[in-house]
Amino acid sequence: MKKSPDSLPVLPHIATMLERAEADPVIDAEAGLQQTKLHRLQLLKAQYAHLRRANQALLIVIAGIDGVGKGRCINLLNEWMDARYVHTLAFDEPEAPASLMPPLWRYWQHMPPKGTTGIVFGSWYRPLFELLKKKRPDLEQVETMVHSIRDFETMLSRNGVQVVKLWFHMSKQAQQARIDGLLANPETAWQVESLDFKVRKKFDRARRAGAVAMSLTHEPAIPWQVVPSADDLYRVISTSEAVLKGLRKRPTASRCSVYALALKAPAPLSFASPVSLNDIDFSLKLKKADYENQLPFLQGGLARILRDARFKNRSLVLVFEGQDAAGKGSAIRRITAALDARQYRAIPISAPTDEERARPYLWRFWRRLPKPGRVAIFDRSWYGRVLVERVESFITPPEWEHAYDEINQFERQMADNGAIVIKFWLAITKEEQLERFHARRKSPFKSFKITPDDWRNRRNWDEYLIATNDMLARTNTHCSPWNLVSANDKHYARIKVLETVLARLESELSEAG
Amino acid sequence: MKKSPDSLPVLPHIATMLERAEADPVIDAEAGLQQTKLHRLQLLKAQYAHLRRANQALLIVIAGIDGVGKGRCINLLNEWMDARYVHTLAFDEPEAPASLMPPLWRYWQHMPPKGTTGIVFGSWYRPLFELLKKKRPDLEQVETMVHSIRDFETMLSRNGVQVVKLWFHMSKQAQQARIDGLLANPETAWQVESLDFKVRKKFDRARRAGAVAMSLTHEPAIPWQVVPSADDLYRVISTSEAVLKGLRKRPTASRCSVYALALKAPAPLSFASPVSLNDIDFSLKLKKADYENQLPFLQGGLARILRDARFKNRSLVLVFEGQDAAGKGSAIRRITAALDARQYRAIPISAPTDEERARPYLWRFWRRLPKPGRVAIFDRSWYGRVLVERVESFITPPEWEHAYDEINQFERQMADNGAIVIKFWLAITKEEQLERFHARRKSPFKSFKITPDDWRNRRNWDEYLIATNDMLARTNTHCSPWNLVSANDKHYARIKVLETVLARLESELSEAG
Repeated sequence: MKKSPDSLPVLPHIATMLERAEADPVIDAEAGLQQTKLHRLQLLKAQYAHLRRANQALLIVIAGIDGVGKGRCINLLNEWMDARYVHTLAFDEPEAPASLMPPLWRYWQHMPPKGTTGIVFGSWYRPLFELLKKKRPDLEQVETMVHSIRDFETMLSRNGVQVVKLWFHMSKQAQQARIDGLLANPETAWQVESLDFKVRKKFDRARRAGAVAMSLTHEPAIPWQVVPSADDLYRVISTSEAVLKGLRKRPTASRCSVYALALKAPAPLSFASPVSLNDIDFSLKLKKADYENQLPFLQGGLARILRDARFKNRSLVLVFEGQDAAGKGSAIRRITAALDARQYRAIPISAPTDEERARPYLWRFWRRLPKPGRVAIFDRSWYGRVLVERVESFITPPEWEHAYDEINQFERQMADNGAIVIKFWLAITKEEQLERFHARRKSPFKSFKITPDDWRNRRNWDEYLIATNDMLARTNTHCSPWNLVSANDKHYARIKVLETVLARLESELSEAG
Repeated sequence: MKKSPDSLPVLPHIATMLERAEADPVIDAEAGLQQTKLHRLQLLKAQYAHLRRANQALLIVIAGIDGVGKGRCINLLNEWMDARYVHTLAFDEPEAPASLMPPLWRYWQHMPPKGTTGIVFGSWYRPLFELLKKKRPDLEQVETMVHSIRDFETMLSRNGVQVVKLWFHMSKQAQQARIDGLLANPETAWQVESLDFKVRKKFDRARRAGAVAMSLTHEPAIPWQVVPSADDLYRVISTSEAVLKGLRKRPTASRCSVYALALKAPAPLSFASPVSLNDIDFSLKLKKADYENQLPFLQGGLARILRDARFKNRSLVLVFEGQDAAGKGSAIRRITAALDARQYRAIPISAPTDEERARPYLWRFWRRLPKPGRVAIFDRSWYGRVLVERVESFITPPEWEHAYDEINQFERQMADNGAIVIKFWLAITKEEQLERFHARRKSPFKSFKITPDDWRNRRNWDEYLIATNDMLARTNTHCSPWNLVSANDKHYARIKVLETVLARLESELSEAG
């Protein structure tokens, strides 16, 4: 559905902010200098307090029409603040490997740790601005982008990353005068060198695109702010005020607001039929002879299909969850035995490192996503958020409640980029687990595999049961459904896992072909 | 100097190992299977012990002629060991960003953490093998590569990374038979698909190159091992034995042996004239008016030269060291004020993260090296190894003794790749420091900058003096000399730093032009 962007509404307060900026307000030099002096001190102080609290990061999104002094303002922030804790993150057109990964991947790779500030140029808004500048943008594409941006920012603000969004703006006349002024001076001409000289002609279109984009992505907890930029002092003061507010803001459990605009609600994630641990038939068994017959056949099939040319631009993400001693490790080994070791990576998930703790919980998984043609096998995963972190009360109920959505979005982004995500829950009974624990304890070779954690988890068996069933119900999406595997019989479980992976790969690759 | 590789000697024990492998030894199937069973258990056990100790990483370098089963052997290791703690690191021809960085950069990026095992395909030996396969390799180039490899491996083994080097080998006839066998079967043909079919014709040359390369890089503490590969069982058993030995080996302070071969000793790092804290003239001062005159002039010059086309394929690494309160931060801010925030990164160095602690100490700096055209400003640096880590006895004397060389090599690698490395020591007197501490304590705004650490460091003033003078004497190389700056007067120090950076950039870029 292609529509003129004029058909897309602009929120009244956004329109007002833009108009005010186009009045090119000026601040009195004397008063302005006094104020900048004060701001400078306050900024530094707020920055150190932010650093000491270290409970959230600040991410400043820089946008606006070209040639209005965005770059200079960033330099100023770096000069005023302690630049050691400010990361300027400038993104151009994505190159490999970023161009091969989901669009948000590169922003995840540069996520600043808690206590620091990131200034983002060329943010996740750029594709939306570009799209809205077109004469007849594809409205469905706009909607998809908007929903993805809103989900991303909501997830960030819920997970310790405060987002401040600034649109630098001035009147058309002022922009023209400013560019002419910079070009006239050889000392400053470089600032506009990289600029598209048609920018002046495109003012109206860029303004309209910005107004619509800001309206579509306005969120009370993560609002857009327009920085009047014609006057240097005014620009500087507005920017530092916005940053100061961001640094001082305490974390809040912000909620994604109702969509105020004439946009369709986001396409609901289609859920597969509900699954539950209660439905598992633990009597399923496979004879050893049958197991030994089928294993090489399935492994051969897996080896072949992953070397198929059609897999070259896909990737495979395997997720293994299940009770302790359910046989995740041995099921994984039956898969890796079929793969070229250069093609896959097995990733055990235990306690996060301190670099991981300083960022949203999904960061550690984003940094390990496989490139096209590769396989990542997660032995435990992001589902720890709604399992151990919930059961052990490491996080609050709103935090794990929100995680279901965040996880669904994460998996959808992988799938949209061509990843085949296959999730397994390996289920054993409480009795079977006890037997395996005892067997492990007796084996001089496996005894180290049993830790006090395992026994504590076992005592929380019922809490885990509830958490697991909630997880299965709320993350069983069509794009990455759960596979419940009865694992009291190891032979049965291993074959079932291999069959499932193979069948899914065959179906995905034949669709693609 | 181009010479036939035949003029390069092969160590007798290397020749013997190759000849033995070319006898294509076979192991009795019954006994072999028993042994593999035992090895498998031992490997897993040793791996877990290694993981629990977590005091070193194991890096297995895989080399050898093509088509002898290297890939299959790696798969086997992944199957036998707990694959979650095994990283298979496969390197092809470098692409950006690796191709823009020093040759060893990409191996640093994938350094496995302590407690885990990395299996390296396409290691740092590949360029050496390629060179030695030529009819008349450039001997000087060979020497440079060999020294760089030896330095790298010695550094690794001294810093918690055990290196095991395996050359897979068999007779020419056996290699040919094996490749024909694989090709005949559609299930296995993929294993040789990527193989250069002329490989059989090139056997002799590859063998010779390998023999010479192994001889040149033989090191008693990091020896090459030849794996006879014609017989599957024999190959598997030899490999697992070598890995087992590696996993069990305790860290040793290995020494780089005397060069046994007819190679020239490594070109000594040329040292600039010795510098010492005792030579500093603390009376140097600059009037405020002169400071304010000169500052914009120097900043303008810096801004211009860093936007010069000649800087596009260079990079700038600034290192700031000095006593607490010597004014590093404010000197850095006078530099960053002149730069485009998108071009530089300021990097404060304090306690390492746990991911950093799990790797050789230089890793945290390798992961932050600037790309061409970029600037990295280190506020404290790798010199912490020979300053705070020495003074506080975090490491043993041999460790910091070795660090001087390791650091010199690190800086040389940067410089060889086009980085301009400029190191500053900002020096203040003990009296001046006390005054600044008191001034900071009184300022409500700066008091948080004074920590108990600062007072403890001050009590160790004399120890730091010794450590600093040692450092200055042993790392003042021509490619990255120290700049001692008298910093009792802040105006003088800031201007001196800017002047030094500018002069060095001008000299480096005019040489290049």
